[in-house]
Parts: sequence; C-alpha cells; structure tokens
Amino acid sequence: MNEALNKTQKFFLRLIRHKAYGLAFNIIRKGRASDLADLFRYLTPKQKQWFADSVLKSHQLAAVLSEMEDDLVVQFISLINKKDLIPAIEKMNPDDAADLFLTLKEEERQTLLRKLNKEQRLTISRLLGFGPHTAGGIMTTDFLALSEDVTSAKAISLIKKQERRSEILYIYVIDHHQQLVGVISFRQLVLAQRNQRLSNLMEKDPISISVDEDQEEASSKIAKYNLLALPVVDDHHCLVGQITVDDAMDVLYEEATEDIYHLASLDTEEHVSTPALHSTRLRFPWLVLNLLTCILAALSVSFFEETIEKYVVLAVLLPVVAGMGGNAGTQSLVVVTRGLALGEIDWRSGIKTIFKEIKVGSLNGFLLGVMMAVITFLWYHNLALSLVIFLAMLGNLFIAGLFGSLVPLFLRKLKLDPALGSSIFVTTATDVFGFVFYLGLATLLINFII
Amino acid sequence: MNEALNKTQKFFLRLIRHKAYGLAFNIIRKGRASDLADLFRYLTPKQKQWFADSVLKSHQLAAVLSEMEDDLVVQFISLINKKDLIPAIEKMNPDDAADLFLTLKEEERQTLLRKLNKEQRLTISRLLGFGPHTAGGIMTTDFLALSEDVTSAKAISLIKKQERRSEILYIYVIDHHQQLVGVISFRQLVLAQRNQRLSNLMEKDPISISVDEDQEEASSKIAKYNLLALPVVDDHHCLVGQITVDDAMDVLYEEATEDIYHLASLDTEEHVSTPALHSTRLRFPWLVLNLLTCILAALSVSFFEETIEKYVVLAVLLPVVAGMGGNAGTQSLVVVTRGLALGEIDWRSGIKTIFKEIKVGSLNGFLLGVMMAVITFLWYHNLALSLVIFLAMLGNLFIAGLFGSLVPLFLRKLKLDPALGSSIFVTTATDVFGFVFYLGLATLLINFII
Repeated sequence: MNEALNKTQKFFLRLIRHKAYGLAFNIIRKGRASDLADLFRYLTPKQKQWFADSVLKSHQLAAVLSEMEDDLVVQFISLINKKDLIPAIEKMNPDDAADLFLTLKEEERQTLLRKLNKEQRLTISRLLGFGPHTAGGIMTTDFLALSEDVTSAKAISLIKKQERRSEILYIYVIDHHQQLVGVISFRQLVLAQRNQRLSNLMEKDPISISVDEDQEEASSKIAKYNLLALPVVDDHHCLVGQITVDDAMDVLYEEATEDIYHLASLDTEEHVSTPALHSTRLRFPWLVLNLLTCILAALSVSFFEETIEKYVVLAVLLPVVAGMGGNAGTQSLVVVTRGLALGEIDWRSGIKTIFKEIKVGSLNGFLLGVMMAVITFLWYHNLALSLVIFLAMLGNLFIAGLFGSLVPLFLRKLKLDPALGSSIFVTTATDVFGFVFYLGLATLLINFII
Repeated sequence: MNEALNKTQKFFLRLIRHKAYGLAFNIIRKGRASDLADLFRYLTPKQKQWFADSVLKSHQLAAVLSEMEDDLVVQFISLINKKDLIPAIEKMNPDDAADLFLTLKEEERQTLLRKLNKEQRLTISRLLGFGPHTAGGIMTTDFLALSEDVTSAKAISLIKKQERRSEILYIYVIDHHQQLVGVISFRQLVLAQRNQRLSNLMEKDPISISVDEDQEEASSKIAKYNLLALPVVDDHHCLVGQITVDDAMDVLYEEATEDIYHLASLDTEEHVSTPALHSTRLRFPWLVLNLLTCILAALSVSFFEETIEKYVVLAVLLPVVAGMGGNAGTQSLVVVTRGLALGEIDWRSGIKTIFKEIKVGSLNGFLLGVMMAVITFLWYHNLALSLVIFLAMLGNLFIAGLFGSLVPLFLRKLKLDPALGSSIFVTTATDVFGFVFYLGLATLLINFII
C-alpha cells in the first residue's frame, strides 16, 4: 500500500539531514518535479529557504510549481523574489499558471500580470475569470486546432514546427467559425496516408463539454469514454480549450475527498498535516451545529422524564435506539450520495430509491427488532418492554431509510451538495424520531411495563 | 451536475418504449459503446433480450462488453449463446477479456478458454492468475516494446505494420534480457530525426510498478507523475504489461467508493440499483455487529441505573454525550483514513498524527464542554451537573481524537483496510467511555447534584 515517500525522496531527506547540500542539489537538478513538490512539506523552515533557492537555481521552478499543492505554493513563493516567478510562469502551461495566480493576493496578482507579455496576460486573465470548479477553471488553452481542409502531411509538418509545452494527444478540427467539428488522435494522423484531408480522417461530432459545466462532469466524461483529453467549447460551440486526463484524475481525487469529508462534517481545507489549532477552528463550527441537534435529541428525551422516573431501565436502552438508527441512516445516506456522485440516480429514479431504502430499513428494522426484543426479554423478563423496543426499532429504521435517502436527494434538488451536512440532518431525524417512538410507546404502555 | 442518462440514451429509451426497433437498432449500430453498456440497466427483461441480440448483430459486442459493469455482464451473457462470445473475445483487449472471464462460472470459463487460439488462451490464463486488486490484475498485455538499437524510422514503420487493438501511448524500450530500460512517447518518436536510435531518444529508468503491487498504488503513480500508461514489470524487472490511464481512473472511482462504503459499514457489492432484498441481506451483518456494540453501550449505562434512579435528568443528557463523541471521532477517523489513502501518512508520522488528533479533540472538547455546561446550568440550575457534563465532554472528545486516529493506523499496521469497520470501533469507544465518564462522575458527585 501507499507509503508517504519513495526511495529518492527518503534519500534526499537523509542527505539534507546530514547537510550534504551538494548531493541534495544534484537530486533537485535531475529529479522528477512531482517528487520535489512533495518533499517541500517535510522540511524545516531553514531547509525550506535553501530548497526554494535551489529549485530556482536548478531551472525546475516552473515544473515544481505546476505539481505543488496550493497550500505549499503559498509558502514556497513567500520564500523567493516575486520577479523570479516571471520566467517560470512563461514556461508553465496556462492552466497551471492560472492556478498559481489564484494562490496570490489580489495586489501581487495585478503586479505580476502586468509584467507578462500581452498574449499571456490575456490568456491567464481569461482563465482566472472561470469558476474554479467549472470545466473552464481546469482547462488549458494549450491545444492544437486545425481546419478541415488541411492534409495529414501538412498537419504533421505544422506540429513539427511548433515548440509545444505539453504532449499532443488529439488534434481538434474546426470549421471557419472556429466551431469544433471533429477530432483525430495523433496516432491516426501519423498512420494516415499523406494526402488525406483532416475532414476525411476525423471522428465527427466528438464528445465535448461546455465551459460552464461542473469539473466533476468533465472528469466523469473523460473516465466514461476513456478519453485522453476533452475539448471545451463556449456557447457558440467554438473550441476554447481542453481538459487533459491528468487534470481529470486530480479532480477525481479532489471530489472523492470532498464527498467523504462532507459526510463526516469536515471542511475540505483540512489535511492530515493541518496544524492542530487550525484543525480545531475548522471543525468547531460543525461540532457546534451537531451540539444543537444533540440538544434537540436531549429535549425529546426530557419530555418523558416522568416515564423514565417510573421505570429507569428505559434509559439503559436509549443508546441502542440512537445507535441503530444512526448506523442504518448512514448506510442509506452513503449509498444514495455515492449513487448521485456516480450519476446513477436522477430525481426521477430518486422516488424509486426512497421506496427501496424504506423497504430495506423496515426489513432490517423488523429483523433487528425481533433480535433486540428477545435480548431485552432475556435481560429484563418484561414482555411489554420487549414489544416497545421491537416497535421502536422497526419505526426508527423506517425513518433511517426515509431520511437517509430523502435528505441527499432533496439537497441535490436544491442544487446543493448532497453530502454536505446531510449526516447531521439524518442522525438528528433518527435520534429525535427514535426517542419519541420509543419513549412515547413506553409512556402509553407504562402500566403494562411496570 | 451528473444526470443518469445523456440525450442519445434518453432518445433510445423513448424509441424502445414506442417499439421503433428499426431506429433503435441504428443507434446500437453507430452509438458509443459506453452509452450502450449503460443503457442495458434501464431495460425490461424482454427489451434486454432484444438488446442483446441486436448488439450481437451489430458487431459492437466486443466494445460493449468491454465497457459494461460486471453485474450487467453476467445478465447480458446469460441472454446470448456462449459460442457467439468467441469472436468478441478475440477482438477485445486481453485485460477486458480476462475481466469477462472473471464473471463466468468456472465450468463455462474452461469451456470457452478451450475454444480460443493458443496464444490468447495462454495470455488470458496468465492474467486470470493475478489477484484482482493487483497491478497484474488490471494490466493489459497489449503493449509495444522494442530493443534499444532500433532506429526511430524503423520503429514507426513497425508500428504502421501492426494492427493494434488500442491506442499507442508509449513505446517501451527493452534490453536483450527483456528488462525495461526506457520509455519514449509516441510524439517524441514521430518528431525525432529518422536515424536516431531508441537508446538515445528514450527517457531512462522510467517509472514502473511490480506486478504484485496494489492497484491503488498503480493508479496513484499514474496520477502523481501525470502518465498516460504505467509499465508493469516482474521480479526480474522484465516488462510484462502496462496499465493505461483509463483503467487507473476506474480504479480511482472504485477505491473512492470502497473507502466511503467501508466507513459507513457497507458492502462494496451494493449499488443504488441493488434490489431491496439483496441490499437488506448485505447490510444486515453490519447492523448486527453494530447492535452488539450498542448493547455494550447499554450495558455501561446499566451499571449506573441506581444513580439515574436518584436523578433522572442524567438520562436526558445521554444523547449529547454519545452524539458529540461519535461526531468528533468520525471527523478524526475520516481525516486519518483519507490521509492514509492519499499516501500522506505512514506509520512513523502516524504517532505525530495521533497526538495532533488528541489535541484537536481536547481543545474542541474544552470549548464545547464550556458551552454545554452553561446550557445545562441555564436548563437545570445545577452547578455540579454542569461540572459533570463539562468533564464528560472533555474526556469524551479526548477519546474521540485518540481512537479516531489510533484505530485506522492500527488497522493499516495489520495490513487491513483502515476504513473497514473502523467507524463501528470508534463509536463504540466514544459511547462506552463517554457514558462511563459521565455517569461515573455523576455517581461520585451525586450528593452535590441532588
């Protein structure tokens, strides 16, 4: 399984620890940018300054900054002179450069932008204008588009002349309105006969995405159709950029973390390496919200103080009612949330899903209710109490299925993230309904219980 | 955001519903395999039979089967004659063909294997021998390897002669022991001068993965180093296959679902579309396990029946203790589990992580404890009870941090999945410790409380 660092990285850290800076610099000069970008996290402040200076000297700055996580980029560029960034930005892919600008303060951003040449300034400004979670926000403007009547030989010679920043995956074909009409893979182009026109070679009507659509939709298209890159078009179907598969993979990681974090009431800003005080601050608001819902649950118990006073054993079984409802509700919630993320449910099949989850909840509620009734009878020899706990489990797991599926579908309907905060809603529902069922029934049947 | 079906797919379903089979067949003939593969899920049994026959007639069988999810493949091939599968298998990528064989019963598998030609039989049998979650299990043996002294012109003419099933992404370079020594991208090859030897063009020491390593490690390497494919080597560093980026993306989806499912105590076999009875059966064992831990929590409350009898208000605050501990524990658990999945923690930095989580838990426990103490005082005007709930919250969130980080790290140390069942362990710990703290303290201070 994953270990945090690979061999080269561990070797590098050992060199640094023994102050073998010459050898360490050699690794920086020849190493892979992704390895170097990761390493920065593991250095002391003094080592970080040396590292930043060395990366600058090694001409790896553009590559390392392209691979680095945002929180590290902020630290890294605070250690170097801003004007040293210019040559690196000029070497970077436009989308990576735009990401770098996003980590800067508004003031620095403007100063740096002014120092770039006009074409780059316009490209980056335009990319910065798209929402960070849209197709436009993750696309690069570094793509190759040719017109329909170009021949394959001409296309290859054009490619040979260009000095390109990135790998060529596809050649896009556009008409005279700049509208996307086809796509050819680089391999098809190379293997084609020399005088074929692109219009005869291309796959027509290629899969594309609109610039405003969600980045999640873009990466799920890339995954579904096994693409290496996805062309991005504007409202007039004109080609404006492409999203490459490596960026789609980053989106997948990001969205998977987001889903799992949101279900656990966590802020996506948080990392394992976030300092304790900052983590505390990020988690506190969610815990306060949770405290309020717990107090709601406590209030619903407090209505039945008299009943509990008469038969204190009722309090003993409270954790069973709350725990089972919470667990079953989370199961429904996660299946439905994941189904929404994978595009397996829409609002219409949603209704069917709610009925299914209620059925699953009720069936398990029946089975577990019977089990718990038997256990209760063996424990307290009280048939009425057994009946109460059976009915409470049945009702509570019905509620778990209902709210576990309804809450995420409803949030999606409101165009909100179906995972965000939904586990708090669902457990509140199972707690409150569970306690009211259980203690309410007990109150009704109290004369039989005692 | 994602919708379950795209326009073509919705149009197809409408045609089928109106029995316009001719037009629908046209879509099958010309449609994208991924779209067709998805559609199968939405058909009635009768429509499924027609669909299977039509796909067979349309010569799209190989492509559609390659794209279809395993549960649908099983249904699909039950509708067609097994011997019709042979030509499709011969057209499929070896890794997709092996996946298809995995969905068959042992008996059918042997019958079909015997009908393939010798080379294919050997390739598929070998692929079937690798664990399904290893690099070997997801690699394809369809790759291009040439020797170091081949020239670029020769390489291109070799490529032009071969009829290949899949896109050429990289050309691997091997020495006379078949050991992997370098890699060249197809573009570099095309753009190189005609008489250059591959040994001069190639990138040396390329990133590779061993055939036994975990599939998650393979896809995280592909993501980290922005690769289009990753060469797979055996124990002698001989090249045996490659993993392409589209398969790496599928692994990412699969592993993200697994992590989130395991945290919610769900079986990865389950889908939104799993029938209710089957879902019930899959979730039941987890709920039984959860019931046992809830009973443990109930037992720990039952030790304090006498105390609760004296002051029944204590029962009212039980849901607050349980709820807050569970939520804070899940937060720690998810941050640590995700950190492990993303390779940001190893066992050594794990110790630091545990201390951090304890600190975060205690800090939030202190703050929320004060809040809850004030609320309790306003509610019941009892200073001793406020003190008890403050100390219980502090202690419980300390435990939440400790177990929330310790449990997944410990499971990983044992080479188990850190997500699997860990939320049940953690909430059991916070429930039991929480109740014992809270009611234990109340018992000690009962004379001050009443």
